[in-house]
Amino acid sequence: MSSALTDSAQQRVFNFSAGPAALPLSVLEEVRDELVCYPGAGASIMEISHRDKRFVDLLHDAQATLRQLLGISDDYEVLFLQGGAALQFSMIPANLLRGTGKTAQYLLTGSWGKKAIKEAKKEGAAESIYDAGETNYDRLPAAGDYQVADDAAYLYYCSNETIQGVQFTDEPACPDSVPLVSDASSDFLCRPLDISKYGLLYACAQKNAGPAGVTVVVVRKDLLQRSPADLPGYLNYNNHAEADSEWNTPPTFAIYVLGKIAKWLRDDIGGLDAMLQQNQEKSQTLYQVIDQSNGFYRGHAQTEARSLMNVTFNLPNDDLQASFIAEAAKHDLTALKGHRSVGGIRASIYNAMPVEGVNTLANFMKDFAKANG
Amino acid sequence: MSSALTDSAQQRVFNFSAGPAALPLSVLEEVRDELVCYPGAGASIMEISHRDKRFVDLLHDAQATLRQLLGISDDYEVLFLQGGAALQFSMIPANLLRGTGKTAQYLLTGSWGKKAIKEAKKEGAAESIYDAGETNYDRLPAAGDYQVADDAAYLYYCSNETIQGVQFTDEPACPDSVPLVSDASSDFLCRPLDISKYGLLYACAQKNAGPAGVTVVVVRKDLLQRSPADLPGYLNYNNHAEADSEWNTPPTFAIYVLGKIAKWLRDDIGGLDAMLQQNQEKSQTLYQVIDQSNGFYRGHAQTEARSLMNVTFNLPNDDLQASFIAEAAKHDLTALKGHRSVGGIRASIYNAMPVEGVNTLANFMKDFAKANG
Repeated sequence: MSSALTDSAQQRVFNFSAGPAALPLSVLEEVRDELVCYPGAGASIMEISHRDKRFVDLLHDAQATLRQLLGISDDYEVLFLQGGAALQFSMIPANLLRGTGKTAQYLLTGSWGKKAIKEAKKEGAAESIYDAGETNYDRLPAAGDYQVADDAAYLYYCSNETIQGVQFTDEPACPDSVPLVSDASSDFLCRPLDISKYGLLYACAQKNAGPAGVTVVVVRKDLLQRSPADLPGYLNYNNHAEADSEWNTPPTFAIYVLGKIAKWLRDDIGGLDAMLQQNQEKSQTLYQVIDQSNGFYRGHAQTEARSLMNVTFNLPNDDLQASFIAEAAKHDLTALKGHRSVGGIRASIYNAMPVEGVNTLANFMKDFAKANG
Repeated sequence: MSSALTDSAQQRVFNFSAGPAALPLSVLEEVRDELVCYPGAGASIMEISHRDKRFVDLLHDAQATLRQLLGISDDYEVLFLQGGAALQFSMIPANLLRGTGKTAQYLLTGSWGKKAIKEAKKEGAAESIYDAGETNYDRLPAAGDYQVADDAAYLYYCSNETIQGVQFTDEPACPDSVPLVSDASSDFLCRPLDISKYGLLYACAQKNAGPAGVTVVVVRKDLLQRSPADLPGYLNYNNHAEADSEWNTPPTFAIYVLGKIAKWLRDDIGGLDAMLQQNQEKSQTLYQVIDQSNGFYRGHAQTEARSLMNVTFNLPNDDLQASFIAEAAKHDLTALKGHRSVGGIRASIYNAMPVEGVNTLANFMKDFAKANG
């Protein structure tokens, strides 16, 4: 392993897991150092009450750092919830669609959007107005490919489809009258966003923002008036908003780690502009190897839809794919197997994947292609 | 601090928090040591996929240890979910009541039971058949105080009410035809149980079983046939059962810690019989100080309803209570303030609270009574 990594990282690999995924080493080291005794508490952060001032301060701090990074105004709530994206698939239509008599419209650009609309249909009228299934979700909608109704309950899309490796570069076109809802689970905090374009944006943490077990929901306050009073209490955004994410015991440890990662992004990386630049460079490094491999590596996503976060590609055959994964592991490059529903190789290169890890993979890919091409 | 605690614990206090609560020091130290590199993974346990064999093995191991500790047969599922007890308040009636045409019956012995029935009423017919509210939840039902209908959807109770400090010593009487449902959040694993008496038993982890963010649900498999197909996916127990708690990304770190605590209980403590004995001794130590204080300390719970986990009591006046808390903190005895809805003092002495912590508190209480009585 490289000398750039610190002592405690001697055994560490470059981990390309799609999620839960690599976290910043400096954050892990801080968490380790505070694990038994959180400073001033005489106890682990896991052991203190969520109502303890130390934890409440830490929760507020995590919210404030996210607001600062993304420029989130007071028109929006920032909530920390449990249940992952899977629970949001239901909570969003339960709060924003149920009982409205309107239709929610969905853009389907991959596996996660498909899961989301399935749950929405249980709560009310939901329809897909774009579905790239015919080309196995390798692309994004072009201008004119879909039409959003002016009175839609909301327009839903997944900004980055981890399985297919397809990412929107900008928000999809949407009338001002329709709240835009984004599943940003796998590209949250990878770049600056104009939050004012969104009605609701959410992300489970375990890609760019923290460990599994906490989900960030950023929601425009006026939309919360839509929530039916008879929703299961946990599913009603208003309960969480009114209680500042302490309607019940929140996942305290996960929020604590998320707060540290947000600070790492702000202070060590230098904010989301700097993060975007690094993400562009990292992804470009890998896509270049693919494009210059004379067809040995074949990218799944169309060029203009390529994800900054998940680089998906195939090799000429299954044997070579298996051999690629096995050889890569010998170079401490792990978790490269594509999702079972797509196959091939997937290199997830979220914010915390060091440039060095991407360069090491790129060099390995070149060598492997030369030896086997 | 005592010499019995290890080096890394030099700054640690005796933490009587009601939850999130004290965890075994040896578990915290293990977690710390593995935090940056989980053995063999080259990555933190927080960074590896929930589908990685290492994590799947760890999840299965945690399930197996719980089955072993509690003697849980194959007739039951052991699920690891998110959303805490608050989500179970809704999931239980959503799965076991909704659409049955039956009535769910609730025994209300404290604050948590009251919260639970409120959510149940949104899902179907639910009624309380015992409510100790008139005496501010200081007691348990006596024989004949309630009657369960033979065709009730289920009988629900909370085995330990943390806020009032009231705990059932045995399961409440319940006809064989009616599934018994228990919120065991705050006394799970404090003693052996005969799981075959239960239809469903659940516990959020942050008292005896782990950090906040994971909830254990033990449910008899045949009951899962009741779940309506149109439930929000996350709320349907069948989804989690069929996917072995990986229907979506589970809270991996919390499950990892829970598994370690279960092993600590089995291997270091010696199982639930030994744990019960220790818990009886610890609680007896404090109740004895209360009973021998000539009325200086007044226990909230009736003697026969006293909790092994949460010792609740009042002092002669608010000034003395404030002074008690402040003085205790100087002796590194923390988080003793009672819940805002009851007031007074609450010493939560879950499994991981060392005997030494209880003895230190007992001595402090005697000294304080002598000085102020």
